Amino acid sequence: MKREDLKKLIDVAAGREVADLVIKNCRIVDVGSGEIRQGDIAIVQGLIAGTGDYEGREVLDARGLYAIPGMIDAHIHIESAFVTPEEISRLLVPFGTTTIIADSHEIANVAGLTGLAYLLDAADKATLHIECVVPSCVPATPFENAGAILEAEDLEAPLADERILGLGEFMNFPGIIHADPAVLDKIMAAKKANKLIDGHSPGISGKELCAYASAGILADHECSTREEMQERLANGMYILMRQGSACHNLEDLLPMVTERNARRCLLCSDDRQPKTILEEGHLDDHLRKCVKHGIHPVTAVQMASLNAAEAFGLKDRGGLFPGKRADITLVNNLGEFKAKHVFIDGVEVARDGRYLPQVEGADISPVRSSVQDKHFSIDKLKLKQKSRKVHAVDIP
Amino acid sequence: MKREDLKKLIDVAAGREVADLVIKNCRIVDVGSGEIRQGDIAIVQGLIAGTGDYEGREVLDARGLYAIPGMIDAHIHIESAFVTPEEISRLLVPFGTTTIIADSHEIANVAGLTGLAYLLDAADKATLHIECVVPSCVPATPFENAGAILEAEDLEAPLADERILGLGEFMNFPGIIHADPAVLDKIMAAKKANKLIDGHSPGISGKELCAYASAGILADHECSTREEMQERLANGMYILMRQGSACHNLEDLLPMVTERNARRCLLCSDDRQPKTILEEGHLDDHLRKCVKHGIHPVTAVQMASLNAAEAFGLKDRGGLFPGKRADITLVNNLGEFKAKHVFIDGVEVARDGRYLPQVEGADISPVRSSVQDKHFSIDKLKLKQKSRKVHAVDIP
Repeated sequence: MKREDLKKLIDVAAGREVADLVIKNCRIVDVGSGEIRQGDIAIVQGLIAGTGDYEGREVLDARGLYAIPGMIDAHIHIESAFVTPEEISRLLVPFGTTTIIADSHEIANVAGLTGLAYLLDAADKATLHIECVVPSCVPATPFENAGAILEAEDLEAPLADERILGLGEFMNFPGIIHADPAVLDKIMAAKKANKLIDGHSPGISGKELCAYASAGILADHECSTREEMQERLANGMYILMRQGSACHNLEDLLPMVTERNARRCLLCSDDRQPKTILEEGHLDDHLRKCVKHGIHPVTAVQMASLNAAEAFGLKDRGGLFPGKRADITLVNNLGEFKAKHVFIDGVEVARDGRYLPQVEGADISPVRSSVQDKHFSIDKLKLKQKSRKVHAVDIP
Repeated sequence: MKREDLKKLIDVAAGREVADLVIKNCRIVDVGSGEIRQGDIAIVQGLIAGTGDYEGREVLDARGLYAIPGMIDAHIHIESAFVTPEEISRLLVPFGTTTIIADSHEIANVAGLTGLAYLLDAADKATLHIECVVPSCVPATPFENAGAILEAEDLEAPLADERILGLGEFMNFPGIIHADPAVLDKIMAAKKANKLIDGHSPGISGKELCAYASAGILADHECSTREEMQERLANGMYILMRQGSACHNLEDLLPMVTERNARRCLLCSDDRQPKTILEEGHLDDHLRKCVKHGIHPVTAVQMASLNAAEAFGLKDRGGLFPGKRADITLVNNLGEFKAKHVFIDGVEVARDGRYLPQVEGADISPVRSSVQDKHFSIDKLKLKQKSRKVHAVDIP
């Protein structure tokens, strides 16, 4: 922030200067006090100057609408939606999402750091705030034929990049539990860079979970039972309650949320495909389910905003407070959470489900032609049967 | 943290190696899940390795006791207790406090950056974790005859010091509200250093409070009414509920604490003198009052630990979680909160109210002889009356 911008912000907040935009007469869902109050939101230079009674050069009358902080998906793989960063922006923003924590595992698994570099550049150009982590486990297991291998030394440069929040989901949990040397090197690289380490620890418990958590793991999005959730909370981990296209954990976990642990509970998609998004929405879908299961609407909104901002150290957002980014979603009510207007950095970017920015595709040439099989023929897809029975994997 | 220490930590957590110390059979007050459970706490090299069922070279049977995270005073002036850092450690630790956020305003107001340097050195040597902020307003007002003037450029070096969390309470709130140039420079210095800015905003509200908060003010410890507290929460500020020797705000504010804003509420002393500490305790006194006023004991403990750690970015403490500092207080119950054993970095430092470390005084020569009045005589204390009436200040 520049000094003159700080002055302007204070001048608008104090009422000495007129705001760029004022959202008038909305019901402000205040994740700080936990209450809902009537008021205006004054915006200047992309930031919230204040809430109360303000005048603006531009005014939006939001009577009857609820203003909630722009929603934050705490863990999502853009690649799982089969689209580019600018297209995930177009998909998610109309539902009220303004920030995603993007784990670039898949693209890095195919295209290594070139893939990550492409993702960061494309993310910079997207309207949606796309906050990236560098994948910790490329390949995910040594049995994989991945397109890249990222060792600790390969992670040092990305971890030093200010656009990178930290290490992505540490899928190699056995490696941590057994203090595998190469894994320790990766953990140390993140600690030295003072960056976070996201988690992924399905099924482990007891001392194994303690060992995993002791390495400084921030969170887990793999809980599917209340017992798993309880134990991870007790180990200091945030719980990213997942509702994706394949995995539907949110409603199983909601009964475990209490007034004293809700702050440690966040919302995420992990993998959410366009069909699911277009049919069921994004975090608005999570919020509907939360409220349906008896979570107080303000608590649910905290999960979708403040909790994620706190967990991932995004100090510039998470609440409709003076000085924060003007990432604001106006919804019809606190049961349906239908996004009527969505603002990112003070600019209206979606209205009534319509995405307003022009989508300009980033240059994808660095990651083109990544499917490489020089010896492919239709013959390779044929099932070579020795008997009339074949092994099959159960697909639920 | 060194790589071999990380390995050792994981090895102990996983049960492959024996812990240095195990606190057996305690009731663990878990600020993550919000529950209380029975278990052991394994400690190695000053850190918590895990909770559950562990073996240690040294064992403390804590049957019947409750383990809470070492308590954190979110705002205190050591100088107001008229003692040195090593003596405030001796005063506070036996009551279960393991960290204080020390605002060095008074010593810097007398001895400038020399005073701050002394405080930092003495704090390093103290057993208590003393986390310092550099005072933002020396002198507090231009009408003061202070021993130093600290301008923005003087604050740059302290703000770059990794031992300094940020700028101390920004008492010159009119300066922020009116966007005073010298004040903007100080705010910018903190922002450039990516450091926090603590607050102090008695009495202001509405647009003035928005203007103050918009500068990025973290917290306020000056609330004395519920309305003030509500409005500061709504502006994104943490509330440091104060219970000192002179100011007793805690009990007035507790009725405002709800399940959705308790996370933004912290405990502090501001100014607490030895007489008060010895007679009434420290944050244990706050906790007793919280519980007496109907706050759930685990919520109260969160206020005294996790909330402060989150607010002040102390990621290495705040909960009894694997990988965190072994700052642990064992209390008799969750009504009296009488500290039976206190551990800092895994070492027992107080037992049954007795402070165990040898107190070694730091060198105070840099700040000696700070009371300077070359022309003092007893005559100066005489009241020079022109009539039989004199002006007097009401002392409550």
